[in-house]
Amino acid sequence: MTAPMLSQDLLARLAEVIESRKPAAGGDPDKSYVARLFHKGTDTILKKVGEEAVETVMAGKDGDRQKIVYEVADLWFHSMVALAHFDLKPADVVAELARREGLSGLEEFARRPG
Amino acid sequence: MTAPMLSQDLLARLAEVIESRKPAAGGDPDKSYVARLFHKGTDTILKKVGEEAVETVMAGKDGDRQKIVYEVADLWFHSMVALAHFDLKPADVVAELARREGLSGLEEFARRPG
Amino acid sequence: MTAPMLSQDLLARLAEVIESRKPAAGGDPDKSYVARLFHKGTDTILKKVGEEAVETVMAGKDGDRQKIVYEVADLWFHSMVALAHFDLKPADVVAELARREGLSGLEEFARRPG
Amino acid sequence: MTAPMLSQDLLARLAEVIESRKPAAGGDPDKSYVARLFHKGTDTILKKVGEEAVETVMAGKDGDRQKIVYEVADLWFHSMVALAHFDLKPADVVAELARREGLSGLEEFARRPG
Repeated sequence: MTAPMLSQDLLARLAEVIESRKPAAGGDPDKSYVARLFHKGTDTILKKVGEEAVETVMAGKDGDRQKIVYEVADLWFHSMVALAHFDLKPADVVAELARREGLSGLEEFARRPG
Repeated sequence: MTAPMLSQDLLARLAEVIESRKPAAGGDPDKSYVARLFHKGTDTILKKVGEEAVETVMAGKDGDRQKIVYEVADLWFHSMVALAHFDLKPADVVAELARREGLSGLEEFARRPG
Repeated sequence: MTAPMLSQDLLARLAEVIESRKPAAGGDPDKSYVARLFHKGTDTILKKVGEEAVETVMAGKDGDRQKIVYEVADLWFHSMVALAHFDLKPADVVAELARREGLSGLEEFARRPG
Repeated sequence: MTAPMLSQDLLARLAEVIESRKPAAGGDPDKSYVARLFHKGTDTILKKVGEEAVETVMAGKDGDRQKIVYEVADLWFHSMVALAHFDLKPADVVAELARREGLSGLEEFARRPG
């Protein structure tokens, strides 16, 4: 038996939260960090992706596992803000990863419980 | 009828493929790109994370949505190689993202196997 | 007796060498690395700037002074290729640095030939 | 006839200014940006190098020549702070560049006016 939560796509859910912070969706730059990023625009958002990658590299050089998780989370989060900024979704990225690796979501899905 | 595969499950499956490319798991640097990254070690892997972030930034500046998806996929993929290199999993990152955002899925996520 | 060569003069000479590798100046992509960068164009050149910055960061994390010098040299070199690609010179950058710092050499610098 | 200023090495002069901002030299984090960088330490300084590289890449993608000069100046400046942090000088980098390119400072210097 599985909880209903099990069917929730966590990245998709996070993407919805990010999407709700867009100016057009009523996101308020004074109250929300993500709304502020959208408000500042492309360069600010892309710069954050670059910065978080540098911090990931530094955490990796430290070999600090907790910090690595934290920085990769920052990196993926800001990547998702960038995706949203261009009206894309993490599902697009995951689909591209699946395609490359020849992971067949369809085959796997047939084996999963209904 | 079943739901399509969840992002976190696809990332977990991809992480397993990456894990199987480690030298200790029999990954062969002559046959596999990922095995080659593990063989070359920390600096090569981290450098790739930085490079893919730069390519993501450039794709964003181009505003080329297909390229953005492709480059973020590259970025996340190499982040996952870095995670594996430090015996971490994308689930650790997704859990950290869920924790921060106070996503309702958090409790469920914590109950799921590795 | 003469003073040793000034940094800005050495950078200017190096910029001339770089300039001579442009396709329009007869640079041959088959023979010269820099000619190859110019031939490949903007994205390849900018990507190298990003990569060398990541390698500088990694050398800094290692605290390896010889490697730091080597990587900053790589970073400045590829910055100079980027400058040349946009018909700019290291003198433009040094002048901007002098301007900001209010260095007394500024006036002199402005009087010197390109 | 040349002005005495002509013999001033501008990068070396800038490096001296940076050096004077070190805590040990009396640099005050409350008054000086560079002193603040030294005070915060290695990771803050290296992160700035990475950030300025990303901004250089973005300026390059914009093809905005004035911004490129500005961002490369930022990049070189923060590289020089990093060099100083590891007790290195821009002259070390310039010497490495000269060495690679086979520029003989000694030969050239013999041709220069006294």
